[in-house]
Amino acid sequence: MSHRIGTAEDPIRVVVWGENRHEQLEPEVAAIYPEGMHTTIKEGIEEFAGDRVSVTTVTLDDPEHGLTEELLEQTDVLTWWGHAAHAEVSDEIVERVHRHVLSGMGLLVLHSGHWSKIFTKLMGTTCTLRWRSDNDRELVWTVDPTHPIAKGIPHPIEIPAQEMYGEQFDVPAPDELVFISTFSGGECFRSGMTFKRGNGKIFFFSPGDQDYPVYHHPDVRHVIANGVEWAVSDRPSRQVPVLLRYEREDFFNGHGYAGALHNRDEVVL
Amino acid sequence: MSHRIGTAEDPIRVVVWGENRHEQLEPEVAAIYPEGMHTTIKEGIEEFAGDRVSVTTVTLDDPEHGLTEELLEQTDVLTWWGHAAHAEVSDEIVERVHRHVLSGMGLLVLHSGHWSKIFTKLMGTTCTLRWRSDNDRELVWTVDPTHPIAKGIPHPIEIPAQEMYGEQFDVPAPDELVFISTFSGGECFRSGMTFKRGNGKIFFFSPGDQDYPVYHHPDVRHVIANGVEWAVSDRPSRQVPVLLRYEREDFFNGHGYAGALHNRDEVVL
Amino acid sequence: MSHRIGTAEDPIRVVVWGENRHEQLEPEVAAIYPEGMHTTIKEGIEEFAGDRVSVTTVTLDDPEHGLTEELLEQTDVLTWWGHAAHAEVSDEIVERVHRHVLSGMGLLVLHSGHWSKIFTKLMGTTCTLRWRSDNDRELVWTVDPTHPIAKGIPHPIEIPAQEMYGEQFDVPAPDELVFISTFSGGECFRSGMTFKRGNGKIFFFSPGDQDYPVYHHPDVRHVIANGVEWAVSDRPSRQVPVLLRYEREDFFNGHGYAGALHNRDEVVL
Amino acid sequence: MSHRIGTAEDPIRVVVWGENRHEQLEPEVAAIYPEGMHTTIKEGIEEFAGDRVSVTTVTLDDPEHGLTEELLEQTDVLTWWGHAAHAEVSDEIVERVHRHVLSGMGLLVLHSGHWSKIFTKLMGTTCTLRWRSDNDRELVWTVDPTHPIAKGIPHPIEIPAQEMYGEQFDVPAPDELVFISTFSGGECFRSGMTFKRGNGKIFFFSPGDQDYPVYHHPDVRHVIANGVEWAVSDRPSRQVPVLLRYEREDFFNGHGYAGALHNRDEVVL
Repeated sequence: MSHRIGTAEDPIRVVVWGENRHEQLEPEVAAIYPEGMHTTIKEGIEEFAGDRVSVTTVTLDDPEHGLTEELLEQTDVLTWWGHAAHAEVSDEIVERVHRHVLSGMGLLVLHSGHWSKIFTKLMGTTCTLRWRSDNDRELVWTVDPTHPIAKGIPHPIEIPAQEMYGEQFDVPAPDELVFISTFSGGECFRSGMTFKRGNGKIFFFSPGDQDYPVYHHPDVRHVIANGVEWAVSDRPSRQVPVLLRYEREDFFNGHGYAGALHNRDEVVL
Repeated sequence: MSHRIGTAEDPIRVVVWGENRHEQLEPEVAAIYPEGMHTTIKEGIEEFAGDRVSVTTVTLDDPEHGLTEELLEQTDVLTWWGHAAHAEVSDEIVERVHRHVLSGMGLLVLHSGHWSKIFTKLMGTTCTLRWRSDNDRELVWTVDPTHPIAKGIPHPIEIPAQEMYGEQFDVPAPDELVFISTFSGGECFRSGMTFKRGNGKIFFFSPGDQDYPVYHHPDVRHVIANGVEWAVSDRPSRQVPVLLRYEREDFFNGHGYAGALHNRDEVVL
Repeated sequence: MSHRIGTAEDPIRVVVWGENRHEQLEPEVAAIYPEGMHTTIKEGIEEFAGDRVSVTTVTLDDPEHGLTEELLEQTDVLTWWGHAAHAEVSDEIVERVHRHVLSGMGLLVLHSGHWSKIFTKLMGTTCTLRWRSDNDRELVWTVDPTHPIAKGIPHPIEIPAQEMYGEQFDVPAPDELVFISTFSGGECFRSGMTFKRGNGKIFFFSPGDQDYPVYHHPDVRHVIANGVEWAVSDRPSRQVPVLLRYEREDFFNGHGYAGALHNRDEVVL
Repeated sequence: MSHRIGTAEDPIRVVVWGENRHEQLEPEVAAIYPEGMHTTIKEGIEEFAGDRVSVTTVTLDDPEHGLTEELLEQTDVLTWWGHAAHAEVSDEIVERVHRHVLSGMGLLVLHSGHWSKIFTKLMGTTCTLRWRSDNDRELVWTVDPTHPIAKGIPHPIEIPAQEMYGEQFDVPAPDELVFISTFSGGECFRSGMTFKRGNGKIFFFSPGDQDYPVYHHPDVRHVIANGVEWAVSDRPSRQVPVLLRYEREDFFNGHGYAGALHNRDEVVL
């Protein structure tokens, strides 16, 4: 663990992806997030991670949704907020992001991003839940007190006004359950969970909504900043896992795959 | 847990899906599995689960690959073996099987099925591994001795001749790690793992190959039969998880989803 | 999984252990549980598991706390409720119960049993939590809908009046998180969790208290009955794991351990 | 995650605990580890963690086994190697170390430390396994490629001569399975596992033995150094979890516990 990025000399390169539709269509959202939620999320990460990060933003309406191959290659951690326009995200871009996550790019999926194409593709499930937007108080309880994402976070976080997200949340059992939220209506939600997929680390964090000023809440911003620092890969290079043949006693030099059938040259898969 | 299917009166309805290509194209495979691997797998399940199961087989070349909506609705557990023709499985059928798994149908993914469309879709990862077909001895060690799938299984299982599957196996950390295999070349593989996805239970079991008579091995057959009995849902009905709105203090009656934007009627997602 | 106990012919042998002190010392508890909580718990298991179980009760004040070697050898599943007198349970009996759990006896730890000697010994942690006895409503949400212990249980269970148990609950991350509870005060608790230890299966379930009639609640009784059926071992015999030496290529005949130092006969450990 | 210890200015304070008996009693062990295994382990950590650590050693024969309250309070991570004299470690010192681990001190348990009092106390199980000291080759395979402990470690590590440790290893399912080892005799072992207990992080790593020069192997040293850096707590202070009462709507000020029975002042537990 000699060299780890995340210093002023070698900051974590973070891209905050924002759908940026509610902010344009709904004045009440624009009033809370006048420069877009992505800007507020960016500022929150910068507030808590300081010069250990270098943060940029891109949005759905940018060419290629802003997620070019070139940008992703230079991205250590991507954060994702989407809601109304999940279906407008092109499948090709989703495949690209998916490949980068499996290759080692960190991913934070925020709030309504639970139903994004990229998250459902990574989870393999419906990622559905129960919800109600009715001004619930949300309390976010830490159940894994040693987790780096919980570092410096009060127990609980108090969010005065929030949309309710409730169980059952149809995701695989997480690798780590960090936070559980309760709502004043009585529901609960596994609101902070980590998942490893391929060589990538994923953190799902549910607090955050377009109708409430949740991304201005200091503890929420702190958790997201912690999540960014946690999601950075420790691996020296970006690489998607591949299927390779290995000869006996040569453990380090895999061969290319040449198809499933004997005596045939073509690659079947 | 009052009523549980799996009796002579109410047997588990098992469908063994077979790709059935090697058996037709390669005489050496046909010599080992003259009626197709699917038939041997079927017989193995019947040998150990007896009248607690009712097993049928379908194959890739059947209409709709044999996996009609009608059949899946009547299937408690599906087993999947594919290899050379993963790409020929239609995406529409994969979506259908995926929906049934998330709704509660059990799924056993066998050996080279690790790279099937349905397994990679459920896992969200590449499901790649290292391999070598060179007559390794495989030993299958039980690491979860209380697991029902390990019931009655020797520790270890000895398989005299096998293809090698080795780590890293790019799948999510399993819910339960039941078996680890070693190979005479020195590799290891997490060869028995369970995963829950949606309302469905999935068991991946790697021993088994077209070039070796592994599905004639009594312990391998026993594990598969145990896996079938384990994968049966305890839920009273088949149902895919859905996203619903719940009013305050009404915990049992979810509403339909009407879109992500305020004051709009259309369903966005 | 051919033969599984839990039928009228071969019922699960359940022992309900009760501390039985509050019932004798506090009239308000005796009013709720006139024959002792252990009797109510026993009746609840019988109500839902019927002739698949054979249930007896023993209490702290019985000789050897009722937990003789002979009884434990004949016990498939033990349930444990204690609170005021954890310290009075003899260490020798705790060692005995511990050995039986590691050998394959199922264990249900109920409510304030979280701080019992046997549970803290099995967990290795303090098993502390936050609490308040102030008439909270508890809602018990299922987060693992395929788990057999959740079979037939409403989502959520509504318990009108309860003691609050809140996070952080200092236990290891469970093997399976089945239920999460919320309380009207806003706290949450991982209220249903499974743990495997040695050859034994453990289910912790927190709803239940001496001051509230929780063990009369049908859903709570149903969960406990499900837990009993789940905790039964699938192994053919009761056996504590042992350390043994194995010769090369003899995988099935372990030798006795003869000490850690070379050329010495004595057993050091 | 602003400030994290592990820099030249603020190094991780590591204590390497050595039983140091084989080295005194057995010339062949002293020949491999002339200054004691603890010294070799210390040097290995320093080789790979450099000035990010400050390492000292203590041994069984030191007063209080070298593990005074004062030392443990100043220890970020403790490593533990014992074998022949587990029983000579005093229960009082084990309680002390246990309390410090639950309070946030990191712990690395090495090789035969699997059967130490501190590890079995933390696990709650027998921690038994199968073994053979017969010059097996051990290969250590990484199954969790994103784990910080695997950073920079070859896949696999090749250890030419080793004692065999085989499954079943009677420990709880780990929080994270990082490494699996195979042996030339065909056995396998979950050789690198993490566990969180209380506020402490634990890493078990099995390669290492008194009869083979395993602690001179660079990759083994690298893993141990990585483990030390991983095990450091992110929490600001050392604190054992406690049971406290919380009033409604006051989530941050727990009260002292005053006993389990109503109207009584004495502390029962």
